[in-house]
Amino acid sequence: MTGNTFGKAFRLTTFGESHGAAIGGIIEGCPAGIDLDLAAVQLALDRRRPGQSKLTTPRKEGDQVEFLSGIFEGTSTGTPIGFIIKNNDAKSKDYDHLKDIYRPSHADFTYEAKYGIRDYRGGGRASARETATRVAAGAIANQILKGISITAYVKSIGKIFMPDTITTFSEAAIEASLVRCPDERTSKKMERAVAKAQREGDSLGGIIQCVIEGVPAGWGEPVFDKIHADLGKAMLSINAVKGFEIGSGFAGTKLKGSQHNDAFNADFTTQTNHSGGVQGGITNGAPIYFAVAFKPTATIFKEQETATKDGKSAKLKAKGRHDPCVLPRAVPIVEAMAALVLADHFLRSITNKAI
Amino acid sequence: MTGNTFGKAFRLTTFGESHGAAIGGIIEGCPAGIDLDLAAVQLALDRRRPGQSKLTTPRKEGDQVEFLSGIFEGTSTGTPIGFIIKNNDAKSKDYDHLKDIYRPSHADFTYEAKYGIRDYRGGGRASARETATRVAAGAIANQILKGISITAYVKSIGKIFMPDTITTFSEAAIEASLVRCPDERTSKKMERAVAKAQREGDSLGGIIQCVIEGVPAGWGEPVFDKIHADLGKAMLSINAVKGFEIGSGFAGTKLKGSQHNDAFNADFTTQTNHSGGVQGGITNGAPIYFAVAFKPTATIFKEQETATKDGKSAKLKAKGRHDPCVLPRAVPIVEAMAALVLADHFLRSITNKAI
Amino acid sequence: MTGNTFGKAFRLTTFGESHGAAIGGIIEGCPAGIDLDLAAVQLALDRRRPGQSKLTTPRKEGDQVEFLSGIFEGTSTGTPIGFIIKNNDAKSKDYDHLKDIYRPSHADFTYEAKYGIRDYRGGGRASARETATRVAAGAIANQILKGISITAYVKSIGKIFMPDTITTFSEAAIEASLVRCPDERTSKKMERAVAKAQREGDSLGGIIQCVIEGVPAGWGEPVFDKIHADLGKAMLSINAVKGFEIGSGFAGTKLKGSQHNDAFNADFTTQTNHSGGVQGGITNGAPIYFAVAFKPTATIFKEQETATKDGKSAKLKAKGRHDPCVLPRAVPIVEAMAALVLADHFLRSITNKAI
Amino acid sequence: MTGNTFGKAFRLTTFGESHGAAIGGIIEGCPAGIDLDLAAVQLALDRRRPGQSKLTTPRKEGDQVEFLSGIFEGTSTGTPIGFIIKNNDAKSKDYDHLKDIYRPSHADFTYEAKYGIRDYRGGGRASARETATRVAAGAIANQILKGISITAYVKSIGKIFMPDTITTFSEAAIEASLVRCPDERTSKKMERAVAKAQREGDSLGGIIQCVIEGVPAGWGEPVFDKIHADLGKAMLSINAVKGFEIGSGFAGTKLKGSQHNDAFNADFTTQTNHSGGVQGGITNGAPIYFAVAFKPTATIFKEQETATKDGKSAKLKAKGRHDPCVLPRAVPIVEAMAALVLADHFLRSITNKAI
Repeated sequence: MTGNTFGKAFRLTTFGESHGAAIGGIIEGCPAGIDLDLAAVQLALDRRRPGQSKLTTPRKEGDQVEFLSGIFEGTSTGTPIGFIIKNNDAKSKDYDHLKDIYRPSHADFTYEAKYGIRDYRGGGRASARETATRVAAGAIANQILKGISITAYVKSIGKIFMPDTITTFSEAAIEASLVRCPDERTSKKMERAVAKAQREGDSLGGIIQCVIEGVPAGWGEPVFDKIHADLGKAMLSINAVKGFEIGSGFAGTKLKGSQHNDAFNADFTTQTNHSGGVQGGITNGAPIYFAVAFKPTATIFKEQETATKDGKSAKLKAKGRHDPCVLPRAVPIVEAMAALVLADHFLRSITNKAI
Repeated sequence: MTGNTFGKAFRLTTFGESHGAAIGGIIEGCPAGIDLDLAAVQLALDRRRPGQSKLTTPRKEGDQVEFLSGIFEGTSTGTPIGFIIKNNDAKSKDYDHLKDIYRPSHADFTYEAKYGIRDYRGGGRASARETATRVAAGAIANQILKGISITAYVKSIGKIFMPDTITTFSEAAIEASLVRCPDERTSKKMERAVAKAQREGDSLGGIIQCVIEGVPAGWGEPVFDKIHADLGKAMLSINAVKGFEIGSGFAGTKLKGSQHNDAFNADFTTQTNHSGGVQGGITNGAPIYFAVAFKPTATIFKEQETATKDGKSAKLKAKGRHDPCVLPRAVPIVEAMAALVLADHFLRSITNKAI
Repeated sequence: MTGNTFGKAFRLTTFGESHGAAIGGIIEGCPAGIDLDLAAVQLALDRRRPGQSKLTTPRKEGDQVEFLSGIFEGTSTGTPIGFIIKNNDAKSKDYDHLKDIYRPSHADFTYEAKYGIRDYRGGGRASARETATRVAAGAIANQILKGISITAYVKSIGKIFMPDTITTFSEAAIEASLVRCPDERTSKKMERAVAKAQREGDSLGGIIQCVIEGVPAGWGEPVFDKIHADLGKAMLSINAVKGFEIGSGFAGTKLKGSQHNDAFNADFTTQTNHSGGVQGGITNGAPIYFAVAFKPTATIFKEQETATKDGKSAKLKAKGRHDPCVLPRAVPIVEAMAALVLADHFLRSITNKAI
Repeated sequence: MTGNTFGKAFRLTTFGESHGAAIGGIIEGCPAGIDLDLAAVQLALDRRRPGQSKLTTPRKEGDQVEFLSGIFEGTSTGTPIGFIIKNNDAKSKDYDHLKDIYRPSHADFTYEAKYGIRDYRGGGRASARETATRVAAGAIANQILKGISITAYVKSIGKIFMPDTITTFSEAAIEASLVRCPDERTSKKMERAVAKAQREGDSLGGIIQCVIEGVPAGWGEPVFDKIHADLGKAMLSINAVKGFEIGSGFAGTKLKGSQHNDAFNADFTTQTNHSGGVQGGITNGAPIYFAVAFKPTATIFKEQETATKDGKSAKLKAKGRHDPCVLPRAVPIVEAMAALVLADHFLRSITNKAI
């Protein structure tokens, strides 16, 4: 049983390798009768696209999505929405030297262990290129979520953190920053840090914060499909993610119950929001906020110790085109995965009560 | 679409409320021909059972599991294993005062918002009592995982942390501690802290660490069912959990790639293990380790501001029997959920390659 | 991946062997807020129960269903409904002689081939006793289907057929017949035939017809989950079923298109109903009708040639208590499976269009 | 929850409308390391292709499948196999007159009732064009089934039946017939009958028989996913299918148990095969055989009574290009769906026993 489908009522199934002919997916569960804004889908893809700034990989992919079905004269028909994104600028030659050697902290060795074969060109299926399909589908999911805003931004890169807050920032403020950090001062520092890592052939990690507003109370399915459990899985399935926390998260473990509990107002809003908008796995109407930890990019241009396929020690230095820090481009991916989770739980919640 | 099933090849479906007649579940996918150690299942339940120490709720539940099917003369038959655990010591009267009022940071309000009705006795389906079924199923899952050890322990309670390490500890060392912290000095401090919170009518949270050894390389299913994504979902679905991190987690975001990458030895072991045993969502044979953040218990005996069902301000003080800190009893739950994930991925991995 | 779950939005997962402690199941997806008529569930079980007439097995099972969760003060809560039915009158001794021998046209050999082990007592999991859980769940499913009637009856036993029609018959007319054939004359003939087979130690098969009225247009999910494909699977999963046809079925293959097509009236009703209420896998508002073929009961009291587990020729004559013809008791099973399919597709259809 | 995925371990998810840009699918679960014969896939598609003989629709589709992922240097990699088949010869103009009118016994009305919108060009998603994706996936499935032969052929068209038998016929004998009936005399009669229906603007139905040899004992999952239940669902999900029977089917209901039971030989083969190779939903090693009933093509060139979208009576006469009898082209579809079911159950059976 493979794992290429995400969601139950709103579902995305994907395929594709970094250097194959195309990547793509099938979106199921989009209700009929929605006038889809396909330009918005392309816009989301453009935000994830390589080559968008001097701080990202120079690989040039137009990332033009082609919708093949499920949309008739601009409106969803209720049938599956198939789409592809062609791989145009794949430079497979750059990867010939990786045929028989494993890159440290990449999935080369593990794919080989699992399948006995791997498409070594550009990371194959393990490449973050795959996430473009998530962004396309997330942008469709977003269009069935009325009155809901999903906003992610870069909270930290390496040791540089922006001031702690769970406010929503304007898209403009986020997009104005090369690293998608809405705090201008912090953004400048981050940009310098990324540029430095780039010069040094090294890489940086960081944390993305996501704030969701407008979700009504009542979404999320006990006991295993708690909405934050599904959000957690969604985020942890993104390349390079090593951690997830909702609401007070790890820091909240240091508080006492009397400090942590969110007292109710008479109108069922809460005086604090340590819960992060979720109680018992079900939304309570307050903003949902969570943080996602990304490790530093595994591809670095410094020499590393590693092993060849036949078990010999070797030295390796990256070739190819890579991001010194994936966080800026990961922002739309986090938003897309959040949209997929919400669309799924929106549809699932509809039948909770007798009609 | 409800969410009461966990896993795909090895599956657990559960039912039951805290004060109903019984809780229970159906385990599917246990291969035929395994001589099951049912005493080991009961032992796992005993570790989660209420009333096991002065630091836990005095509710007295024998938590005797009754297996109803799928086992013939002690051996699994390949058919579903149905089981129930009766609720014996439910004191529903203790909850009458909660019929029309919502407890802060509990799921009372959200269940009502979702379903328009709730079984308010003992927290109903939202009660952590439900996790007993996970422990029972996890103890079965554990028996199909040959040569694998799953060991969880309490790493922190409130602000008290044990020395940082990712070593496996002996079960004896963990069980010797009232709070299941294998570091004796830290354990004593934690016990005092929990006792103090108990006296004050307050509660504490903390972090559980889990270390898994013996998993071969090749388990985990790209791209959505990465093994750490499934582990994350498993843990986040446990009551009171607010965060999950694998390997270097949030701290790892501060490292550079050149510091974080796990260089390979010639035998494909790695010189470090920042990955936490997983690369690209697939195990690499190194120990898997992860941390799980639990918020402080929501039930406290201090007066809190809240709201009644009909939207009036109110004051509330807990009655009933509760744990001032859930972490000691959560240790076997974390282990059980890890076992469920591993058993599922073990079975799923078998068909990865042509046979 | 085992196959003990039926349905996607409205789901039943079952467990249990014929001679284990109990059989049971978990019903998921029943919306909250439905005042459930549990007496109706027991009534449905009574119609399937062994020992209800001189023409059925004398095994005496009260088949009392015990609901363990998901219902609070008589109303569904939206959480899973767990239930068990105890096995009281299991006479396992009757089956000792089957430990090492395979009964012809039973599942003894195939279970052994599949699992390497089998619970030989009373047919184990392969026993039709399992269908009691379907009847219980179907009776719950039925209660979320407002304005829909599902009526099955025996159309033929052996070579005795009732006059061809697709009318709905009153439950009274069906229940008045010992063999559940609403045509009184045919019923008498069938009763005599069954009694004769019983005396001769032989068995009979037959066909059950089911007519469903009141289903609105628009249920059924292209392309694989066509509603008649799901009905077909549901029926074929019942013990002893060898065939399924909807609408004109096999006989319709002999008509020309100009004879077979159902011309529309201006109000979208059709002048004929060869379609059986389904076009393109989606209901059209006309009555749904289908036929289900049951082979003669495999257990007969005549001597048969067979083989022992270790590959020796042997003779076998049934012991134990058995139905000479399963059709009368299969009527409520067919209705229950139809109800499960309809409840599932009702819930699934709700999100077809944008809301 | 839509229904565009078939299978659990070996899965096909499809998309596409008759006159959209392309149809396609994603195949999951194909084990890694299989050297795939892609020419065989194209060959299977050619057998289903329109325009292959004077008795089929003259629509000219090359039906060239393009594989986009999951195959590296000719070998399966274990990752999802995405593929598309472009729609080249769609003459959408032919369907303009259907925008506001419903064709009798087509899915026009039901799609509109379900979704409130339909792509009326060429039948949209309801078109049998969708089955090309099944044939492509089935041809992949077939390649993981070693030593198994799946052979379907036309058993009857209208009232013309070939002599009753369950023998396997050579592919050559089947392909030599324009209507894919391996009995030469019957084939000639059928050809004349189809040509006559074509001239008269009418259509014919019929029955396809399928025989599968080489399946070992032990495939099929109790209790709901019995292998013949899954085969039945697979077949009933094909356009125009109204009935399915396995083994003795409907005719078997007229036999007594003593006639119908398949006595065992000492080597566990059976003296007869009324079971059709399946007992208790699990294969027994004997040939599997089943019959599938297809209604006459709904599209006819005779004038029919029908209704317009706004509820007015109307007359309608088909335009466009259509098959007077779908059976010859349905043969590879039946084989493909059988292969999908078998591949799924093969993979699922692997974990039945402890390893």
